[in-house]
Amino acid sequence: MNKQLLLSNIRTVLIRLEETIIFSLIERAQFRHNQRIYKKSEFGDALQGDSLVGYLLHQTEIIHAKMRRYTSPDEHPFYNDLPNPVLPPIVFEENPLRPNKINFNSKIREIYESCIVPAICESGDDNQYGSSAVCDVTCLQSISRRVHYGKFVAESKIRQNQTAFVEAIKSKDKDALLGLVTDQSVENDVIARVRKKTEVYGQIDHGDSNPLRIQPDVVAKIYKEWLIPLNKAVQVEYLLQRGID
Amino acid sequence: MNKQLLLSNIRTVLIRLEETIIFSLIERAQFRHNQRIYKKSEFGDALQGDSLVGYLLHQTEIIHAKMRRYTSPDEHPFYNDLPNPVLPPIVFEENPLRPNKINFNSKIREIYESCIVPAICESGDDNQYGSSAVCDVTCLQSISRRVHYGKFVAESKIRQNQTAFVEAIKSKDKDALLGLVTDQSVENDVIARVRKKTEVYGQIDHGDSNPLRIQPDVVAKIYKEWLIPLNKAVQVEYLLQRGID
Repeated sequence: MNKQLLLSNIRTVLIRLEETIIFSLIERAQFRHNQRIYKKSEFGDALQGDSLVGYLLHQTEIIHAKMRRYTSPDEHPFYNDLPNPVLPPIVFEENPLRPNKINFNSKIREIYESCIVPAICESGDDNQYGSSAVCDVTCLQSISRRVHYGKFVAESKIRQNQTAFVEAIKSKDKDALLGLVTDQSVENDVIARVRKKTEVYGQIDHGDSNPLRIQPDVVAKIYKEWLIPLNKAVQVEYLLQRGID
Repeated sequence: MNKQLLLSNIRTVLIRLEETIIFSLIERAQFRHNQRIYKKSEFGDALQGDSLVGYLLHQTEIIHAKMRRYTSPDEHPFYNDLPNPVLPPIVFEENPLRPNKINFNSKIREIYESCIVPAICESGDDNQYGSSAVCDVTCLQSISRRVHYGKFVAESKIRQNQTAFVEAIKSKDKDALLGLVTDQSVENDVIARVRKKTEVYGQIDHGDSNPLRIQPDVVAKIYKEWLIPLNKAVQVEYLLQRGID
């Protein structure tokens, strides 16, 4: 089997990605909510009518697209008017996914801006707009990667046991598919692990007046309420679009 | 006194910045050295003759300059052909630094690319050029901020006890100034603390096949051999340019 589809390899990628996500959330949580940076046209025409975070995300994606980021099957852009790569294409190992157009980024961005940022940041405004927005781009990119990795998870699961999925896919039964891709015990392990990791990172002495503000329960909640459900929604959508062999 | 110059506040900023630096080094250390990304013209005309990392850094700075990053007295660009901000200027609290043109970034970049990357990454090439370069930009920006914070440290020290510095500044005695800004006990504390932090981050179970590769001794060495000496060199240079009141 393609090594990107081995469940042991997928697990390793997702566990390592927990650090990237937790680090990026901790970095964002240094700054206040700074609600203005999420409002369209808040800074006038200079940002082409976009929000400050949207503008920075868009400009960053334009550069990353030139560097061929979105030619990788585990990367998904938030904007769809990006330029072609200026570098010659990478010879990837065979892409194990079936062709699909699944992109949950608008949903991810909505949840990130309206639920996750208020959960991790102190309310109010500290005028650190640029620094906050730079962190937001990193958070959004790492969360997007985590959520869309569901495509690899789903492809791996259906190759291991196609029979289990046939009926639910044929009848387009989303609830049945959601049940099939759910493993409560694995989910509990993930949630316990990210809580534990955040606890350990919070133990460090950071000076009394500037603690790591993010709470272990908040990271656990982010995984439980948003990242894991979105990842499973990607799996369900992918299985429906993929069909059976 | 301006609160940016209170030694307790400077200490808090620098301690918090240790996390940003350690996180960014851990992220970079996921990937191999990938030496090609530091070579100019390695990818032909597409990157305007720059290295891949240089190109990404330059393009990132162009965006950040538009978002007025380099109007902040604790931020220093690596490139000097950047556009003006498109956002209206922030009203900063009074800048406590004297006017100066000190910018150690070319030195920082040289040390980062030739010493720090080989110290934290496995040798060889894993083709993860874009991901590595994105991490490099974050590392370079956080290290640059740490090193140039020496300006605030020096301004704070000379305001507390100008008499101590008069003779060394008048005679432009760099060695004497270096002696005056050195506090071996504080340096030892910093080095011990970053070693301890990296140890704690390394305790976490990341799956056997994908450990956090960065060693506590390596981070201690990065601070001891490069970040602290460069920070002190900034202090010395600043004091020389500043003069006495």
